[in-house]
Amino acid sequence: MALREDALELHRLNHGKLSVVSKVSVKNTRELSLAYSPGVAEPCKEIHKQKDLVYEYTSKGNLVAVISDGTAVLGLGNIGPEAALPVMEGKAILFKQFAGVDAVPICLNTTDADRIVETVKLLEPTFGGVNLEDIAAPACFIIEERLKQEMNIPVFHDDQHGTAIVTLAGLMNALKLVGKSISDIRVVVNGAGAAGIAIVKLLLSMGVRHVIMCDTKGAIYDGRPEGMNPIKEQIAKNTNQEKIAGPLEKVIVGADVFIGVSAAGELTKDMIRTMNPDAIIFAMANPDPEILPEDALEAGAKVVGTGRSDYPNQVNNVLAFPGIFRGALDVRATTINEEMKIAAAYAIANLISENELHSEYVIPHPFDLRVAPAVADAVARAARNSGVACK
Amino acid sequence: MALREDALELHRLNHGKLSVVSKVSVKNTRELSLAYSPGVAEPCKEIHKQKDLVYEYTSKGNLVAVISDGTAVLGLGNIGPEAALPVMEGKAILFKQFAGVDAVPICLNTTDADRIVETVKLLEPTFGGVNLEDIAAPACFIIEERLKQEMNIPVFHDDQHGTAIVTLAGLMNALKLVGKSISDIRVVVNGAGAAGIAIVKLLLSMGVRHVIMCDTKGAIYDGRPEGMNPIKEQIAKNTNQEKIAGPLEKVIVGADVFIGVSAAGELTKDMIRTMNPDAIIFAMANPDPEILPEDALEAGAKVVGTGRSDYPNQVNNVLAFPGIFRGALDVRATTINEEMKIAAAYAIANLISENELHSEYVIPHPFDLRVAPAVADAVARAARNSGVACK
Repeated sequence: MALREDALELHRLNHGKLSVVSKVSVKNTRELSLAYSPGVAEPCKEIHKQKDLVYEYTSKGNLVAVISDGTAVLGLGNIGPEAALPVMEGKAILFKQFAGVDAVPICLNTTDADRIVETVKLLEPTFGGVNLEDIAAPACFIIEERLKQEMNIPVFHDDQHGTAIVTLAGLMNALKLVGKSISDIRVVVNGAGAAGIAIVKLLLSMGVRHVIMCDTKGAIYDGRPEGMNPIKEQIAKNTNQEKIAGPLEKVIVGADVFIGVSAAGELTKDMIRTMNPDAIIFAMANPDPEILPEDALEAGAKVVGTGRSDYPNQVNNVLAFPGIFRGALDVRATTINEEMKIAAAYAIANLISENELHSEYVIPHPFDLRVAPAVADAVARAARNSGVACK
Repeated sequence: MALREDALELHRLNHGKLSVVSKVSVKNTRELSLAYSPGVAEPCKEIHKQKDLVYEYTSKGNLVAVISDGTAVLGLGNIGPEAALPVMEGKAILFKQFAGVDAVPICLNTTDADRIVETVKLLEPTFGGVNLEDIAAPACFIIEERLKQEMNIPVFHDDQHGTAIVTLAGLMNALKLVGKSISDIRVVVNGAGAAGIAIVKLLLSMGVRHVIMCDTKGAIYDGRPEGMNPIKEQIAKNTNQEKIAGPLEKVIVGADVFIGVSAAGELTKDMIRTMNPDAIIFAMANPDPEILPEDALEAGAKVVGTGRSDYPNQVNNVLAFPGIFRGALDVRATTINEEMKIAAAYAIANLISENELHSEYVIPHPFDLRVAPAVADAVARAARNSGVACK
């Protein structure tokens, strides 16, 4: 209750959380003549001659649009673009706080994927990057894919990749603790929304060979007769090679890792007891995880992570997105590719030394200020190495 | 030369002029939980229940989009959206400096009027107002008209109305000096672009009865066979009732006021000598006025204004747009109507008392910090009185 009232008051008293300020002084005629007319014509003319100079003379190179249509906001669902604004403003202040990135929330008055794509493309001259946020699946996949293909600035759907990257970082550290190899583990991912799909794709990129994804109809496999869509078909072709069918309680048997992006109560103690020894559990349903950490540990799990700040090992996207955009913008990357995502995950994981690592500390704290710079460095290097950096 | 180098350096060293900052602190877990997850869900839920609360809980109510397509930038013409960005950033910092308005430049990658309209409409959930900027005529008229009809937030094309309002303010003070009545004067407006059209419309709203507008083909009149377009047709129906044809040098004879938004050299000393005594000249071509003030005065003009900061009576839009949006946002006006524009012009004019008024001081200085609050008050009152204020 205190949280509710305090949060409302914070937003009401400040009339939102964002402000746009000048980096230069305009307090007299001379300063006005440099920052505005007639002096401003000089950078305009330079950019007109060579378009890339927009990165030198304007704020574009440090400016990210945080785009949403309000269709999948937090756990609240399709609440519309106005109601999504507080989240986008929050995202924008985290961009600034953790990585010095200027971010502008833009909530669009349409849920049509084509119109969203067309609109965001028209914004390209102004922004150095696009962070898609809280857009429902499967539209989010189509929108991100098209924008990545059709724009020359980085486009990143944080609900997919931010969660996937931090989860992967935690998983890599957890595997060190239990002494298992990423290529041998059996992973079950429960929930086939934006985050689940991205997690599976990133696990496959990392060399995980045994993954089964479950949705409300149970395990997804190639040829499953119901509840499929183009994205799930694609996932099915690359996971669950044995085409195991059935509910979570069946496929969880013998698994080493459970990753939940589904709903409270989906994982039970009994299910964990059927997993392999030293089970690793990421139960990230919000606000209530698939299983409470104390219950998971009691049932024999070795490492447990959640999305919550009041338990150890919080999977918090803020560990990823600020540093990822910082790194991408720093080298003017044209995209954010798999190499950059994997580099980000390693950078997050490696901030915890072997000595410090233990079952309640496989993921750095959200306020660990080393994280964003480390991620930025790694992402910039990966962008350069993979040939997508412009400087 | 110094201006050129200094302006380039200012823009380059700062990487543009704008920054987005947080109004709230997010330095620990508690603060994060209020400004972002999970606390941020509370304002989201409130806005979802009652959409208008977006003005209470977000930055929307103080946020203006500065929109351009880069087709008519300063005197540089169609230089494209990237090259227009420095101007839009400059506009944004003036909004903040003079009226505390948060403004975001958005340069669009299209010059198609329909696509611009569709895009700006989709941005409505995020912004409290739209300032259109440096969009070429006649597209600017179509775009503004449609957006005004189809959006519920104020839309204002500053190149039209900002210039018109400040010109009108200067004209009202100049008329006091020469003791002429606005309903009796004969006015010639030279230049039929965005500013010229808006000036004529505002003059007509103010009760000026004798106006002739000229373009490159001379006086515009109803039924002129060439060089017309729908906007000029409309102007022709309401001006030049005597259907006088011919070049500027013909129609200027016997005029009391010349208003130029055209090009250097268009007005000559000889033409001024044919005007009525105590002629008033606003020669606003940039950077070089239609006639230099010293020449105009020598030819007998009584009051001369230009667009330049190095001469008296500078017609500078910064006297209008910050206060106009401040006033409109303060009362959550749904539009910016004629009443609000006229109120702004009176507010600007009336800041100069009868005692202070003289031929080199009919317009306040751009850095007169009384202007924006006075304009804001007058605009807010006019919005309330004309029934377009929501609070």
